[in-house]
Amino acid sequence: MPVNIPETGQARVVIIGGGYGGITLGKALKKSPFQVIMLDKNNYHCFQPLLYQVATGGLEPDSIAFPLRKLFEKQKNFYFRMSEVERIDTAIKRVYTHLGHVNYDYLVIASGGKTNFYGNEELESQTQGMKNVPEALNLRSLILQNFEQANHESDPEVRNALLNFVVVGGGPTGVETAGALAELKKHILPKDYPEMATEDMQIHLIEGGNRLLAGMSEKSSEDSLKALEKLGVDVAFNTFVKGYDGLNITTSKEALDMAAETVIWSAGITGNIIPGLKPEAIERGRIRVDAYNKIIGYEDVYAIGDVALMKTEAAYPQGHPQVAPAAIQQAEQLAANLVRMQIQEQVQPFEYFDKGSMATIGRNKAVVDWKNIHLKGFIAWLGWMFVHLMYLIGFRNKLVVFANWVWSYLTYDKGTRLIIRPYHKTKSEKATKG
Amino acid sequence: MPVNIPETGQARVVIIGGGYGGITLGKALKKSPFQVIMLDKNNYHCFQPLLYQVATGGLEPDSIAFPLRKLFEKQKNFYFRMSEVERIDTAIKRVYTHLGHVNYDYLVIASGGKTNFYGNEELESQTQGMKNVPEALNLRSLILQNFEQANHESDPEVRNALLNFVVVGGGPTGVETAGALAELKKHILPKDYPEMATEDMQIHLIEGGNRLLAGMSEKSSEDSLKALEKLGVDVAFNTFVKGYDGLNITTSKEALDMAAETVIWSAGITGNIIPGLKPEAIERGRIRVDAYNKIIGYEDVYAIGDVALMKTEAAYPQGHPQVAPAAIQQAEQLAANLVRMQIQEQVQPFEYFDKGSMATIGRNKAVVDWKNIHLKGFIAWLGWMFVHLMYLIGFRNKLVVFANWVWSYLTYDKGTRLIIRPYHKTKSEKATKG
Repeated sequence: MPVNIPETGQARVVIIGGGYGGITLGKALKKSPFQVIMLDKNNYHCFQPLLYQVATGGLEPDSIAFPLRKLFEKQKNFYFRMSEVERIDTAIKRVYTHLGHVNYDYLVIASGGKTNFYGNEELESQTQGMKNVPEALNLRSLILQNFEQANHESDPEVRNALLNFVVVGGGPTGVETAGALAELKKHILPKDYPEMATEDMQIHLIEGGNRLLAGMSEKSSEDSLKALEKLGVDVAFNTFVKGYDGLNITTSKEALDMAAETVIWSAGITGNIIPGLKPEAIERGRIRVDAYNKIIGYEDVYAIGDVALMKTEAAYPQGHPQVAPAAIQQAEQLAANLVRMQIQEQVQPFEYFDKGSMATIGRNKAVVDWKNIHLKGFIAWLGWMFVHLMYLIGFRNKLVVFANWVWSYLTYDKGTRLIIRPYHKTKSEKATKG
Repeated sequence: MPVNIPETGQARVVIIGGGYGGITLGKALKKSPFQVIMLDKNNYHCFQPLLYQVATGGLEPDSIAFPLRKLFEKQKNFYFRMSEVERIDTAIKRVYTHLGHVNYDYLVIASGGKTNFYGNEELESQTQGMKNVPEALNLRSLILQNFEQANHESDPEVRNALLNFVVVGGGPTGVETAGALAELKKHILPKDYPEMATEDMQIHLIEGGNRLLAGMSEKSSEDSLKALEKLGVDVAFNTFVKGYDGLNITTSKEALDMAAETVIWSAGITGNIIPGLKPEAIERGRIRVDAYNKIIGYEDVYAIGDVALMKTEAAYPQGHPQVAPAAIQQAEQLAANLVRMQIQEQVQPFEYFDKGSMATIGRNKAVVDWKNIHLKGFIAWLGWMFVHLMYLIGFRNKLVVFANWVWSYLTYDKGTRLIIRPYHKTKSEKATKG
């Protein structure tokens, strides 16, 4: 059965996903001759780079997410349907969702990324991901529940497991999460749990390569390592996680094996692939596209953003970094090209404009790389905040997040540490323990 | 096994519950010779009168809740244990929790109230309560999910059921919820769902008595009725809900029976009774106390706030209203009396100071009764906001809620309408549907 959407007689662009790629494309097609239909399983857009602050009690989910309907208020050619996409059938130009099917003239897959567990099902079921709002809220609850439990736990072994926090992966998410946990330890734990010894909380960051922030400059790697170590984070390089049964983590370095109730997995992302594409269009979990974001082997199906793999630019032989600016730029170029095609104009290939990269470690500590410039410390930290505020959607969210940051900075406090969504490891997970 | 709490040699006051009664008592005992132990299943205090704004997308839960540990930071004689109380054994002066037991010298039950379904299990399992944060968030999700589904629903019967909202109970919570739903209908629906006819959303308020806000003046009843009707709410008096199977609601007036996916139950509260008290100490779901808040038949067990029923004051033969000021005043008096007993001074009986009552219906609309004064309209609405801000715990929460209200007022917008916690009626509930 078709999903109930008015037929307007316009050619239909169906966008799967309301991330940066999807919303930029939708907006850019505002005055175009197309009917624009967006499908997303959530009714909101979420700014993933700040999810770690939701998980560590710094921000509310509503501050970093934005209702998609509100974003497209008054855009007459835009139709939103909250629905989970199940598969596509490109032969009959149709998307199947749990609500029914939607026909398209052009399809744009902007379905983003998800946590990459490299096929290890145990790690997938036992560790905490942080790629969406519910995952971040679950992690927040788990952290706080572990503090509560450790506070009255008399068995030192059990208490140590509750207070061992392991972050896997030394990319921006891992570095920022480890830094935020260290700030919790330093500023919140002594105030909220005066009965506990703060130093009982241990934060471990495990990285497979030989440096942090591998996508950034060597200087950024060094500076972020120094900053984390100063905050008391144990960083282990050249170490791979082999398994985690919900309590015991095993790694390629035996000395690092330990009992830990919280293992946060931020060791990579992979694309949200929509079933129904030819196998040859998929490479390493992403969808191969040409310089026009058109999927290899298709005429009317496109992919943009984190899920898309474009290898046409010499500077990016392995595709572009999976970051918001790439998604936004691709969406803008694709919108222009779709309009050009309608009026028989020549389409233009995509060229990525690198806006640099950055990561924050904590209070007054961040690293920024932009062309050949490297910044660190307070000025980098201000830059990080400014850029992240700019990317946040909506004036209200910018204001709320800014106010939260100022408040936290002045008071050394995290505003939001309520256990509203108690997180229970499932019975089967508990059963696997020791 | 005992819960691990240091023995300080001080006499122990154990407080069950972190509502207004509990936190006021805990604070008031700061410089007392007692060790104060608070038990609550949540790690936060919640301001229940604003839960309806969480449910209708106006506020975040973090704005109206406050972490208990933070509230008692630096109070050296205070110990918090997040734990669910299972029962008490007054013979051996012990509270049993899911963590283990806690011994007391004095026990204060400040466990507050919960939704009263008057023993109807079907209503309890099928309607939406709004007495705690998870219930309010579930209701928010249900409302928004129903809008999403109605937006593409082609069967008019199904769509009507999705857009029929029934509020049961015409007390402050029912009136405020109906008003907030009406504002959603007026200001948000047309912007977010331009494909839907706004008038398809119907809001019904069902009250068993013959007027709204029965605890307030006749004028307030009339004014609130006028305001709700102006907002398009259907109000039915002298009507009792007989049943609700998850889709069809049946009442004492056949003409009102209808299909409605959302039925909000705000028809009364009853005390959270802790198992282990003598039956004669319980009356109509509350715990009977004397003028010193001491439970009838006990020497060292007290009850304060919504759960306590004190009938010693001539002006309140059926006990005091179940509102924050009564709980706060009882807690203050009890704290003073506990200290007096320690120093062999005469204890003082409780006298309630009525601070008046108020309810808001919507933008610029509220009613206030204070002694013989009745206010309505804009000035009452300002008063309502001021008083609610004052009762909110914490400067940050006051600021955030105030900013939210100013923002909503200026933009006619509700900031937070994300479906983060999808609410699914359970299978058994779905199965009971016609």
